[in-house]
Amino acid sequence: MSELTARLREGLPADAVLTDPDVTASYARDMADFCPAGTPAAVVLPRSVEEVQHVMRTATALRVPVVPQGARTGLSGAANAADGCVVLSLLRMDRILAINPADRTAVVEPGVVNAVLTRAVNEHGLHYPPDPSSWEQCTIGGNIGTAAGGLCCVKYGVTAEYVLGLDVVLADGRLMSTGRSTAKGVAGYDMTRLFVGSEGSLGVVVRAVLALRPRPPRQLALAAEFPSAAAAGDAVCRVMESGHVPSLMELMDRTTLRAVNDLTKMGLPESTEALLLVAFDTHDPGADLAAVGELCEAAGASQVVPAETEAESELLLQARRSVHYALEALPGTTMIDDVCVPRSRLADMLEGTAAVSEKYGLTIGVCAHAGDGNTHPTVCFDPDDEDETRRAHEAFDAIMALGLELGGTITGEHGVGVLKKEWLARELGPVGLEMQRGIKQLLDPLGLLNPGKLF
Amino acid sequence: MSELTARLREGLPADAVLTDPDVTASYARDMADFCPAGTPAAVVLPRSVEEVQHVMRTATALRVPVVPQGARTGLSGAANAADGCVVLSLLRMDRILAINPADRTAVVEPGVVNAVLTRAVNEHGLHYPPDPSSWEQCTIGGNIGTAAGGLCCVKYGVTAEYVLGLDVVLADGRLMSTGRSTAKGVAGYDMTRLFVGSEGSLGVVVRAVLALRPRPPRQLALAAEFPSAAAAGDAVCRVMESGHVPSLMELMDRTTLRAVNDLTKMGLPESTEALLLVAFDTHDPGADLAAVGELCEAAGASQVVPAETEAESELLLQARRSVHYALEALPGTTMIDDVCVPRSRLADMLEGTAAVSEKYGLTIGVCAHAGDGNTHPTVCFDPDDEDETRRAHEAFDAIMALGLELGGTITGEHGVGVLKKEWLARELGPVGLEMQRGIKQLLDPLGLLNPGKLF
Ligand SMILES: Cc1cc2nc3c(=O)[nH]c(=O)nc-3n(C[C@H](O)[C@H](O)[C@H](O)COP(=O)(O)OP(=O)(O)OC[C@H]3O[C@@H](n4cnc5c(N)ncnc54)[C@H](O)[C@@H]3O)c2cc1C
Ligand SMILES: Cc1cc2nc3c(=O)[nH]c(=O)nc-3n(C[C@H](O)[C@H](O)[C@H](O)COP(=O)(O)OP(=O)(O)OC[C@H]3O[C@@H](n4cnc5c(N)ncnc54)[C@H](O)[C@@H]3O)c2cc1C
Repeated sequence: MSELTARLREGLPADAVLTDPDVTASYARDMADFCPAGTPAAVVLPRSVEEVQHVMRTATALRVPVVPQGARTGLSGAANAADGCVVLSLLRMDRILAINPADRTAVVEPGVVNAVLTRAVNEHGLHYPPDPSSWEQCTIGGNIGTAAGGLCCVKYGVTAEYVLGLDVVLADGRLMSTGRSTAKGVAGYDMTRLFVGSEGSLGVVVRAVLALRPRPPRQLALAAEFPSAAAAGDAVCRVMESGHVPSLMELMDRTTLRAVNDLTKMGLPESTEALLLVAFDTHDPGADLAAVGELCEAAGASQVVPAETEAESELLLQARRSVHYALEALPGTTMIDDVCVPRSRLADMLEGTAAVSEKYGLTIGVCAHAGDGNTHPTVCFDPDDEDETRRAHEAFDAIMALGLELGGTITGEHGVGVLKKEWLARELGPVGLEMQRGIKQLLDPLGLLNPGKLF
Repeated sequence: MSELTARLREGLPADAVLTDPDVTASYARDMADFCPAGTPAAVVLPRSVEEVQHVMRTATALRVPVVPQGARTGLSGAANAADGCVVLSLLRMDRILAINPADRTAVVEPGVVNAVLTRAVNEHGLHYPPDPSSWEQCTIGGNIGTAAGGLCCVKYGVTAEYVLGLDVVLADGRLMSTGRSTAKGVAGYDMTRLFVGSEGSLGVVVRAVLALRPRPPRQLALAAEFPSAAAAGDAVCRVMESGHVPSLMELMDRTTLRAVNDLTKMGLPESTEALLLVAFDTHDPGADLAAVGELCEAAGASQVVPAETEAESELLLQARRSVHYALEALPGTTMIDDVCVPRSRLADMLEGTAAVSEKYGLTIGVCAHAGDGNTHPTVCFDPDDEDETRRAHEAFDAIMALGLELGGTITGEHGVGVLKKEWLARELGPVGLEMQRGIKQLLDPLGLLNPGKLF
């Protein structure tokens, strides 16, 4: 037994420390297949804060890197193992510790699955909005690590907006509480938000106080077909300019629609260039949809089909949620981009992406959280074809360059991980990068937490 | 002319550097009268980012402290001068640079007055929610410095929720951009939120990208009279547990009601222990108010009076907004506390505050952003009476101790400043404090920005 394993076992039950290479290898990577991943020395599955502290103390003593992990549904390689690291999987810390309807808060351990929390708070008439399409798998700890978004963000915002306070185990094993259990609070610097989206590089989240909302009414959706991406982008702007507050506003291009049809046999319209889904959970969603339908037509929609029932609306959402799997099922492999631009530049972003596709001779399927200007161009390529692979990487980069040019960001919700390290530096600029490195140095002076990510 | 003045004038027009001691003295303090303040060496009033950079470069070269200032309406002494400092007033950087209805964003300089921005975006059908009662005076820069709240926060959240990106001049004069112009973004650590609420201690905000919302319908309010603070607290919980989303939920105790009547002759009920104001800006506020009225009665309200018109509702809000001035107008002086507790502990907080009042033999008027559990107990005392002054300080501290005991925070929105430095350390604990000091050290290694505040 290595010294690392022996020391880990001093503070952890035997079944919480895995070292069988076949087993540990299965924890090596998240869902961004093409990102590099190392070989872990061990995987630990703690059940308590004290056990996490023991892991971090041991890692600090032995100078071993630690990679925190949730469900490994990440799309940037942020949870990928480093060589010789301890993978710290939080999956067994999965208790919902409290749900308080008067305070509209929940207190959870990091391993709670997003959909499990959603269902649990639903029973109290409450709602936890952030809903990444991976919600049946991904964990709250991972959602906090990536500041995850989802379909409802256009109305309800992202994970960051729902994290009130955290308990974090620092690199040296000390426990720090940040934030608060109250609706408001301004005591000192906002350390909570520093950890949200920090991709496991500043500390291990072991407990979170989350804000909840009352459960909204069921939403009703429409689907609008557009002859061009520009027309769909124009519709998005018109809807927002008119003061509407949709609870969902998603876009799928023709490539995406075909792929979804292939996978699900849903019969979505394939002749259209862009399908826009818009939903409302207001008191009279029918009226809102009618108004939005007219705005879509004014922007050039060839057809507007409102769902008649909640069930029909839910089908449309399912179509959208299946996009990732549908594009993955295409021949070859895929690289998902995640550029977010100001909503008013969405049409430019979509047209520019089409130009990139043409220039590099590659299929790029685009779906988008259109209401937030957050596009997911998915570059399809054959990984066994060297030239195509090179072009795919160039196209991927060209899309990020375009996003920055349009005043956007290289990542709206998937994070930087190992995938976009170079690009993070470009987006931040030298002063920003220096300060971010300073933060990392402050909280993790030995550089043990998730090394090789972000910077 | 001192070297400081001479160097400042090299990069600033003559009228932007004030050194007449009578004039500079008038910039020495904010609205927290009883907090210590030093004597500034100079006051500068820059009009551009470059001028701010010049001030910070000069200050760094000469090792002179700098105190950023907005409208000095702060209530914690956070904008108070340090001896020999440069007061850096941002009041002349007051341009609204852009309002974009499709993106629902505004770009502003820090000296823009809150109400000026509100009115400007209103003209585009948009709304900037954060509405501190000082909104006709306070600046966006100051709001960002304190992460200000207001009356609408119970539905719309605080300033922090509306700051997407910042341009900040660092202590050494370098310019750093944080965040984004997009609805979402997770590229690197969230530095934006680190500056929000940092009370001028980490950098000088010179530009902000703010999120806007569509303009909500006018709100309609009711007033409910309660025979005890506990009953009013109970009503607040019942309303929230029932899934209502009020746009305002404020509480005034008997002392406060009398003071408001004295100042405004409004004729608010004085026989009641606690008056709760609840408002809705939903599509049918009348129906929501009727439901809430019933919940108030079930919680023991002796009378529930819904406003008949928007004008009547606005009068109730004006009563609430005048509380600060009304309590200030009482004989003697006042210290405003700002403890925020979980909503479910509001009744305990109110009853505990009454016990503190009794124990120390002092009048303590309480108003509260009740829906957020954010209470403002205002301790009234005669500053010429030594014993009473001592008791006032003890009572003020006892209220914070109670807040922490109930799982709350020492400051919901007014900040730490010089007023609550000791208490910040207690709330954060040693690890939290160490990390916050590390952040300060990272961004302001010479300790020039707003020294003596927070820690
Ligand atoms: C089909 C599919 C759909 C998706 N849809 C969306 C979407 O709509 N929106 C969206 O934002 N994302 C989406 N994603 C991406 C992914 O699901 C999210 O990034 C999610 O937040 C990851 O959660 P996880 O539990 O899988 O975390 P992991 O992938 O295991 O980890 C993510 C990051 O968080 C860190 N981390 C995990 N737990 C902790 C902890 N306790 N403390 C500190 N750091 C921690 C890790 O180190 C890593 O850096 C999708 C992914 C898939 C496969
Ligand atoms: C009658 C009255 C009612 C009030 N009601 C509320 C309320 O409902 N909610 C609430 O939250 N507060 C309230 N306040 C407190 C106060 O108005 C707020 O704290 C407000 O945000 C202060 O803004 P200001 O422009 O006056 O800033 P100042 O008081 O001048 O400064 C506040 C802090 O911000 C820093 N600062 C200012 N500008 C910058 C900048 N450009 N860059 C960096 N740092 C900067 C200063 O250094 C200081 O630390 C009230 C005050 C009064 C007098």
